[in-house]
Amino acid sequence: MTDDDREFVGDLARLRRSIDNLDAAMVHLLAERFRCTDAIGELKARHGLESRDPRREAAQLKRLRFLAAQSGLDPDFTRKLHALVVREVVINHEAVKFGSGAG
Amino acid sequence: MTDDDREFVGDLARLRRSIDNLDAAMVHLLAERFRCTDAIGELKARHGLESRDPRREAAQLKRLRFLAAQSGLDPDFTRKLHALVVREVVINHEAVKFGSGAG
Repeated sequence: MTDDDREFVGDLARLRRSIDNLDAAMVHLLAERFRCTDAIGELKARHGLESRDPRREAAQLKRLRFLAAQSGLDPDFTRKLHALVVREVVINHEAVKFGSGAG
Repeated sequence: MTDDDREFVGDLARLRRSIDNLDAAMVHLLAERFRCTDAIGELKARHGLESRDPRREAAQLKRLRFLAAQSGLDPDFTRKLHALVVREVVINHEAVKFGSGAG
């Protein structure tokens, strides 16, 4: 193994440790975020409201793109992430609605 | 507006403020995470290595599922998120490889 190879292995390991830490933080934030959206789902089901709120979603997306541009994240990636999260939230809300409807 | 409606509006606004804070934190973590993977992409391109590392991806996924189960997040959601992020990382790495190949 050359010095260059050793440096590469060290750099890669260091970067991967940072990624692992960032991923752990993200999982915990997402757990908390779904806790919030689950609570909203229960509130909405109790008040007979729709899961989705296009105005809220549009405002979120606009804000996410702004934050992404500020922090150096590709704004278009936030669109994909937002779509993934909203899809999951809607599935969860529908489950709550269905559950409370049957109860 | 009844007291119940007022309570609903207040609860919804409070939960949405938490979601907005969590989203801002997530955008900043993701910006940092892509900074790490961009650096890895450059290292790999310089050493003529493939963008993807199936063993690393499998280990990440296993760890994400474990962290999800610990924090109360649906472990299956981490699989979807991981797939989205890996897809983006590969696009970025290929762009670096292509860029460095042309330079």
